[in-house]
Amino acid sequence: MPDQISIPKPLDAGTLRVIPIGGLGEIGRNMTLYELDGKILIVDCGVLFPEEHQPGVDLILPDFSPLRDRLDDILGVVLTHGHEDHIGAVPYLLRLKRDIPLIGSNLTLALLEAKLKEHRIQPYTMTVKEGQREQLGPFGLEFVAVNHSIPDALAVAIETSAGRVLHTGDFKMDQLPLDDRITDLRAFARLGEKGIDLFLPDSTNADVPGFTALERDIGPVLESVIAKAKRRVIVASFSSHVHRVQQVLDAAVANGRRVALIGRSMVRNMGIAAELGYLKVPEGVLIDAKKAADLRDDQVVYMSTGSQGEPMAVLARMANLDHQIEIGEGDTVILASSLIPGNENAVYRVINGLTKLGAKVVHKANARVHVSGHAAAGELLYCYNILKPKNVLPVHGEWRHLQANAALAIDTGVDPRNTFVGENGMVLDLRDGHARVAGQLDLGYVYVDGSSVGSITDADLKDRRILAEEGFISIFVAVDAQTGRVIVGPEIQSRGFAEDESVFDTVKPQVVKALAEAAENGVRDTHAFSQAVRRTVGRWVNTQHRRRPMIVPVVIEA
Amino acid sequence: MPDQISIPKPLDAGTLRVIPIGGLGEIGRNMTLYELDGKILIVDCGVLFPEEHQPGVDLILPDFSPLRDRLDDILGVVLTHGHEDHIGAVPYLLRLKRDIPLIGSNLTLALLEAKLKEHRIQPYTMTVKEGQREQLGPFGLEFVAVNHSIPDALAVAIETSAGRVLHTGDFKMDQLPLDDRITDLRAFARLGEKGIDLFLPDSTNADVPGFTALERDIGPVLESVIAKAKRRVIVASFSSHVHRVQQVLDAAVANGRRVALIGRSMVRNMGIAAELGYLKVPEGVLIDAKKAADLRDDQVVYMSTGSQGEPMAVLARMANLDHQIEIGEGDTVILASSLIPGNENAVYRVINGLTKLGAKVVHKANARVHVSGHAAAGELLYCYNILKPKNVLPVHGEWRHLQANAALAIDTGVDPRNTFVGENGMVLDLRDGHARVAGQLDLGYVYVDGSSVGSITDADLKDRRILAEEGFISIFVAVDAQTGRVIVGPEIQSRGFAEDESVFDTVKPQVVKALAEAAENGVRDTHAFSQAVRRTVGRWVNTQHRRRPMIVPVVIEA
Repeated sequence: MPDQISIPKPLDAGTLRVIPIGGLGEIGRNMTLYELDGKILIVDCGVLFPEEHQPGVDLILPDFSPLRDRLDDILGVVLTHGHEDHIGAVPYLLRLKRDIPLIGSNLTLALLEAKLKEHRIQPYTMTVKEGQREQLGPFGLEFVAVNHSIPDALAVAIETSAGRVLHTGDFKMDQLPLDDRITDLRAFARLGEKGIDLFLPDSTNADVPGFTALERDIGPVLESVIAKAKRRVIVASFSSHVHRVQQVLDAAVANGRRVALIGRSMVRNMGIAAELGYLKVPEGVLIDAKKAADLRDDQVVYMSTGSQGEPMAVLARMANLDHQIEIGEGDTVILASSLIPGNENAVYRVINGLTKLGAKVVHKANARVHVSGHAAAGELLYCYNILKPKNVLPVHGEWRHLQANAALAIDTGVDPRNTFVGENGMVLDLRDGHARVAGQLDLGYVYVDGSSVGSITDADLKDRRILAEEGFISIFVAVDAQTGRVIVGPEIQSRGFAEDESVFDTVKPQVVKALAEAAENGVRDTHAFSQAVRRTVGRWVNTQHRRRPMIVPVVIEA
Repeated sequence: MPDQISIPKPLDAGTLRVIPIGGLGEIGRNMTLYELDGKILIVDCGVLFPEEHQPGVDLILPDFSPLRDRLDDILGVVLTHGHEDHIGAVPYLLRLKRDIPLIGSNLTLALLEAKLKEHRIQPYTMTVKEGQREQLGPFGLEFVAVNHSIPDALAVAIETSAGRVLHTGDFKMDQLPLDDRITDLRAFARLGEKGIDLFLPDSTNADVPGFTALERDIGPVLESVIAKAKRRVIVASFSSHVHRVQQVLDAAVANGRRVALIGRSMVRNMGIAAELGYLKVPEGVLIDAKKAADLRDDQVVYMSTGSQGEPMAVLARMANLDHQIEIGEGDTVILASSLIPGNENAVYRVINGLTKLGAKVVHKANARVHVSGHAAAGELLYCYNILKPKNVLPVHGEWRHLQANAALAIDTGVDPRNTFVGENGMVLDLRDGHARVAGQLDLGYVYVDGSSVGSITDADLKDRRILAEEGFISIFVAVDAQTGRVIVGPEIQSRGFAEDESVFDTVKPQVVKALAEAAENGVRDTHAFSQAVRRTVGRWVNTQHRRRPMIVPVVIEA
């Protein structure tokens, strides 16, 4: 965890300070702080999933440093919807202070509470719904329905003495959503007429031209793929995508098949969604996975996780014949999901594995079995024109997405000087409708690895990358510090470098010689002896093998 | 390198044996052996590039084991075109026997010779061209023009007493190619009328419906992007894509700009292509990169490598401001290339970096600046219908591609029993037009890492993956073997695990205790003492940190 980071300059009373501490320059760990009159409101608190250059990391959290000595000033955390990149870091925030109130819709809080239960945290919650208004200290909140790839998502308008803010959370504008809960453009229009001083829109698809297709267009495709399937059907998607699962249930019913949910998170989330009425389960369609095995192959659909090729998830295990459901000739597998960048090779490995076992694999590239949950450029233009915001701070995206979103704002007439494309930690002050960048906090990545939070550093990750590329050679030796004479060793171990350790026979005498020479040159301390060992082995491995493994010398005084 | 692998059952005289030893189940290291009457013909000899689960590997070679005691029987290697995945392993094959003849087109051999020069090998070559016939022992070769994303590609028909084979190499059927050298469907038709007994087609795009767009459709797009550019233009593509570079040169000329080639391989390959007449360089368009800096920003186009986000290539260095060409506000960068699966995150990092510096980035996703070099399903259907092959062995693809290609064969009337979707090492015997699988060789991956070839094993890569995910803890201790008493140590080192080594203070006494206990239980040898150390540290790290680093105990007798 980096040292405490101070927020620049004292805040004038009546100035609203906005600090996105996650979600700028990345898809994930969305979290924005709003400060006014000494009180703090937080919108979202998510995790980021690691990329390949962050090996071994389980999760990445926003850097909570700016909050550490302000915990008592936090009035609450508004969660816009129930995805991990918006709620996943809440358990870690609550470790700092257990009783921070959590505010969100029914489904959002239900999913969050299930997660917190695993962390053995009993939270303080406030359930809200679209149209509802709440006053939290200086922040007047109004919740607005938006649709997304999970039900019950909310945008939040924040009314303050310094100006009016609209924070969309993730959203799109499906005009015929499965649950008829459309993104509330009437509310957007009303807020726009009152005047939006600062708009923080989702940028994920800002560089995608046109409009996101309707979720309901997937239904007939699923239905026809299932109709043609001669044996079992396995559908993989995200475990929180209630409407996608709804369509699978409906398509199964239309084809006289029953559905077994597979995978812990799928079973848990759909249980919650069904109980709260977000998932409408047709009578008798669900069947226990074990009992499904007794059905004829053409009577069952398995609904599973693992659509991103995650090696431990159900689908990858099926592709490796490492799951009780043994995929075979004539089975049909549908990947009803996006392909998140970075996962391509893993997903293609799963597709190849399934194909090799004889399955027909239907995916985004060969059938319309997925639509995005985020507004594309065309939809964002509608928003800008309805809202006519004075200032725009695009959030939720990599730099290219943020930039594309700012360009859309400018195209609709927003003054380029009033669009703010920035990095996490950007401090934006708003007063009387005027926004200005007041500073930049230097925030870090907080890595979760096993039970450790923040103890893995970027330096450790750099070491891991070197270890991955090259392996290591460790050399232990105990010396007489006066003469450099080797008493014990050199004992050489390596991993990831070469199978046959006999290659080190040639370098051992060189190490002995180098130590003696170092002592002759006046070296007496183990650190300097270590350097001599490192140099000797490094030179040897570079010239003999043209490689650069990590070299770990351990020299102790005997 | 695995042990020598024997080829199953002796071959009857007059049987043609076909063994793909690379390129099945993967995009890369294409290599097929043809054996007849004791003589061997090889088609292609390429490398495969590693995926993220093969860290630190530079290249992957086909497993040459089946050839090791047959080197004197090799009549030659036909290289179908000059891409790395078809010629890259030739230097390693020639290390086994220097004088194996290399057969290919003018450009193919020129690129290969430049590569061999770096390996200080002077090869024996035979230059051939489309329409040419050559007899190599029992193999009658006929070379057929095909087009691809590099000029001068050839398919090869192999006429033998056992049957007629057509091996396409990589190809597509651009009907208006830049060099007017179309895939020779008349030759395909003539061979088809004589009767093709075995067809080995490129499978890369077999699962892509329709037809690959024309290369020349890219020209006007490049021209208009360059026309709109206000400052510098940087185009990144593959360094062997002569026609793509040709179009960049032409689009630059049309806009009154000069072109500087950037990057060693780009300069080298285009030098060869221009010298041999494959690249038509308009008078005065090329300019030295250093001199280009003196031109006005709107007078220059830089043509570079690095379109796959390779961290050391020109484009990534530009995105990091680590190159003499400093990208800035108003520059335009065009990625005129495909996005090879697995490279997405690296490429998006480069795009984000360039965008952040103020550049406009044009790529495949927002403009038609790339077309594939491989025949899509529609084109393959033409081939099957013109050739009407008796047997089909799809090559050059992952399992899903091979399967899709076989399905196209079957759709056009090939008997499903005569389509062979297999793995590297599949032994297919052909006699009197009948093909049958005669065996399966168990071949491995041969990794090149630095100067080592084949000494890095799958076990080393597994170690590297563990090191990457978790780091390591090494524990050195010298003991009195009789009592287990610690004489020196425990000395603990770790990398990639945690920054603060003081965490080990608690486990050191446990190690001392475990060694004493082991001795009490009769342990006397260092191996068993090591096991005790491993168990103790393993248990501690698992319960205290919930992690599983590699544990490397070194116990020696004092």
